[in-house]
Amino acid sequence: MKNVNNSKLKIIPLGGLEQIGMNITAFEFEESIIVVDCGLSFPEDDMLGIDLVIPDVTYLKDNISKVKGFVITHGHEDHIGALPYVLKEVNVPIYATKLTMGIIENKLKEHNLMRGTKRKVIKHGQSINLGCFRIEFIKTNHSIADAAALAIYSPAGIVVHTGDFKVDYTPVFGDAIDLQRLGEIGKKGVLAVMCDSTNAERKGFTMSEKTVGITFDNIFAEHKNTRIIIATFASNVDRVQQIINSAYKYGRKVVVEGRSMVSIISIAAELGYLNIPDKTLIDIEQLKNYPDEQTVIITTGSQGESMAALSRMASSIHKKVTIKPGDTIIFSSNPIPGNEKAVSKVINELIAKGADVIFQDTHVSGHACQEEIKLIYSLLKPKYAIPVHGEFRHLKAQANLVTELGIPKENIFLMRSGDVLELNNDGAGITDRVQTGAILVDGLGVGDVGNIVLRDRQRLAEDGILIVVLTLEKYGNQVLAGPDIVSRGFVYVRESEDLMDEARAIISDALEECMEKNITDWGKIKNIMKDSLSDFLWKRTKRNPMILPIIMEV
Amino acid sequence: MKNVNNSKLKIIPLGGLEQIGMNITAFEFEESIIVVDCGLSFPEDDMLGIDLVIPDVTYLKDNISKVKGFVITHGHEDHIGALPYVLKEVNVPIYATKLTMGIIENKLKEHNLMRGTKRKVIKHGQSINLGCFRIEFIKTNHSIADAAALAIYSPAGIVVHTGDFKVDYTPVFGDAIDLQRLGEIGKKGVLAVMCDSTNAERKGFTMSEKTVGITFDNIFAEHKNTRIIIATFASNVDRVQQIINSAYKYGRKVVVEGRSMVSIISIAAELGYLNIPDKTLIDIEQLKNYPDEQTVIITTGSQGESMAALSRMASSIHKKVTIKPGDTIIFSSNPIPGNEKAVSKVINELIAKGADVIFQDTHVSGHACQEEIKLIYSLLKPKYAIPVHGEFRHLKAQANLVTELGIPKENIFLMRSGDVLELNNDGAGITDRVQTGAILVDGLGVGDVGNIVLRDRQRLAEDGILIVVLTLEKYGNQVLAGPDIVSRGFVYVRESEDLMDEARAIISDALEECMEKNITDWGKIKNIMKDSLSDFLWKRTKRNPMILPIIMEV
Repeated sequence: MKNVNNSKLKIIPLGGLEQIGMNITAFEFEESIIVVDCGLSFPEDDMLGIDLVIPDVTYLKDNISKVKGFVITHGHEDHIGALPYVLKEVNVPIYATKLTMGIIENKLKEHNLMRGTKRKVIKHGQSINLGCFRIEFIKTNHSIADAAALAIYSPAGIVVHTGDFKVDYTPVFGDAIDLQRLGEIGKKGVLAVMCDSTNAERKGFTMSEKTVGITFDNIFAEHKNTRIIIATFASNVDRVQQIINSAYKYGRKVVVEGRSMVSIISIAAELGYLNIPDKTLIDIEQLKNYPDEQTVIITTGSQGESMAALSRMASSIHKKVTIKPGDTIIFSSNPIPGNEKAVSKVINELIAKGADVIFQDTHVSGHACQEEIKLIYSLLKPKYAIPVHGEFRHLKAQANLVTELGIPKENIFLMRSGDVLELNNDGAGITDRVQTGAILVDGLGVGDVGNIVLRDRQRLAEDGILIVVLTLEKYGNQVLAGPDIVSRGFVYVRESEDLMDEARAIISDALEECMEKNITDWGKIKNIMKDSLSDFLWKRTKRNPMILPIIMEV
Repeated sequence: MKNVNNSKLKIIPLGGLEQIGMNITAFEFEESIIVVDCGLSFPEDDMLGIDLVIPDVTYLKDNISKVKGFVITHGHEDHIGALPYVLKEVNVPIYATKLTMGIIENKLKEHNLMRGTKRKVIKHGQSINLGCFRIEFIKTNHSIADAAALAIYSPAGIVVHTGDFKVDYTPVFGDAIDLQRLGEIGKKGVLAVMCDSTNAERKGFTMSEKTVGITFDNIFAEHKNTRIIIATFASNVDRVQQIINSAYKYGRKVVVEGRSMVSIISIAAELGYLNIPDKTLIDIEQLKNYPDEQTVIITTGSQGESMAALSRMASSIHKKVTIKPGDTIIFSSNPIPGNEKAVSKVINELIAKGADVIFQDTHVSGHACQEEIKLIYSLLKPKYAIPVHGEFRHLKAQANLVTELGIPKENIFLMRSGDVLELNNDGAGITDRVQTGAILVDGLGVGDVGNIVLRDRQRLAEDGILIVVLTLEKYGNQVLAGPDIVSRGFVYVRESEDLMDEARAIISDALEECMEKNITDWGKIKNIMKDSLSDFLWKRTKRNPMILPIIMEV
């Protein structure tokens, strides 16, 4: 064990970085731990068949007596999505603002966890005490309402965690980011800032959400004679509000389509984050009662997700909405990296159906660009900088910005999942590593799919499988049945009969050889069959399918 | 058979559109067919294990006596890559400019097709007669040297096919696009223009290739004390030239790394398209004899391809080059749609190794933006517009531009693969469809992997496979061995023993039921086992693995 200096604060990212998207960070001081956010991640391309990825929270379980609670910055999946899984093992209270809590509670209900989970709604400007920490929620702006930065007061000093944020001087709902309070805290002296890096490679300043509303108004004015369909992120309540505003202004009824969209809008409306004029919202079943030019459909599917409502409309498998020539379809979103091709596919399908697809000036980011990041650091003037939220390249880009502002390089920490950063006013450094990792969720299984299973899936996906079965005589070595070869995902057998005949001959020869050499060990027989078939197939096809010999004994 | 109006020209895209990237278009007039380009495509995400996609050229085979030759616009894979496959079935001469032919010949050598293939090198400005067609090669600019537009003179009128192009007034090598000749042909009267749409959504004008050279000079000037590694497209000979120029200017030796890079550079140098000062190029083995600040490595891997040189350097598996802190690494490329995540992964790895990664102002596109497209149409003033090269959204974007220029909507054709457009000065319309399609190449197999095999691979990739084997008594119905269950890619069996035990019990119950009910039909027995196991696994895991019952008989 390392000798721990008790007067230092520990900051330990438990997801993030290598596991992009899983935002979960432990803050530890002596006998107190608080956890900021508890996000999930979506599977990488090589995680075949996996639905979700959640963080390994062994460190929290091992220190469960210290853990005081989860403090949540905002209601996006990469910040709250793992809660239903993690709470089963680390059952501590959750602290969040009202809308964020509303979205969390919706999840807890689905997992039957409402009863067993303590929750407390916190207002911006309010503080809570958890162990030796005080945490103040500070108003920020983001692509979901009710986002908060956290000022974490510890005996070692103040750490400000921005969460995901942007600076919006003219937000659609509620107040602008509380720059005054950030300045005030900065004046007190800040030990470290952990700041959103997502857009740290982008110059300038992210535009206000309101600019999108102006674009919507213009599009509605120019397309008075067609139906309008708008795809956006379900959780962007302010975006939905602006669509509703434009629809109301131009006398259109609004239909909400897509499960997640319906769910978030009903939570937001119930909690007072959406202002929907009477008789503006109609059910999708009523759509047929209104002429096209009097309707707007707000839908999921802005990322080209194959099962989302817009994708189903584009590929003509949506039950209620059929795309028509002349439909005006707005993508109020940018493709998230990795989704570019899927989004393009949907756009191509829609255009091929004669729709007019608009995707320019119809979206603004929810993340701070370079000038906003500089603003935050200039208000807070911290001793240390710990760029967070983003890929390594984005953290590095923020590090470069922060260097320009005069923070010395040795005071900037690009942390990896599991790194333990110990810091106080006397110094800071990464002193240790704790266990972290990605736990794969596949269907109901949590953690039962690991590297071996994924490697097998990868191989099966590439070249398929050949199964060689035969029945041997017990105590003897005579082949009673087979060898038979069954293949899946290898070649279309009917068109490759010659190849399969030859493969069977290869296996028979290999078996005969085993008999002649009096090899009776099943493992050896299997390997000989496997190797000879594998060699043959590689030579003939330059493919490397999985070969699975199965021997039965009678 | 439709009644064909013999005085019309037919234009038939045989790849392209639904099969993005496979550029191959037949021009037919009475007894003559010429084919422009013969490209391959790379597999879509759902084409698991597939290496390449080539066009179905049944139409050409069925009309082989008419086919006069392939006329090639430039040497990119999506324009020449299918030649070695297609030539085996449609063996007609190839016409191309010098560098393009050099690259084609390199392919033919690999496929042992040099002897059997007639080839003729054509100069810009030169024309060839093929059947009733005359084809003039016109100088253009693109991200590969020696690109040509084609003026296709037919008895029905002139069609100008731009190929992939941009307008570069200050090219690195050779002349600018021959705008004068395009204007002259325009004056004669052009029936139709087929114009590159790739960048039709982008405003403005694509920057000159030379601007990248200026950026290189600046970077070389600013990084005099570090090694420089530059990743770019192997075929961008002008880019490579500019790297060599900067290297020479700043006294650095140049190493070329990556198989395709070495191959193209040697072809280009041999044919006089690259000017390499003496003693500038060194072998990778000599790298250790020079200090870092006197070397530049030009490498493949700008698209994050996992096996390319730069990716291997980034993940520390390159045999000759180890990334060091301080290395300056330039991505002289943009990610092609679909490669964004792979590129980011490599950038993150390089930055994590302490390298300085630069990717701003280090690339320009090889395709025309909106103002260039308008320029071409304004020079040629065609009766009909047929946007080509690009996804449907890009074709549509060009159609919108062309409409602004005054070409009536009914004279603009967005064609799909297989559409037969018949046109002359009296009119134009899509009158027929011919067979086209994507033929999948997997290893040595051409066309032996179809939808069934891909569907199986998809399912295997998602949830793996369970194989149920048992041996039954001949003429009886007694189970002599098994049932055994073997799984791959489903769950990690050691950690799921209970589940597998239960699965075996389910199978035994199902079998017993068959015995009791005297079911002896193997097909029925297999289905009963499959259904009961499938139900059980879905209930327990919400997964749907492939289940493969195999019965042997002794």
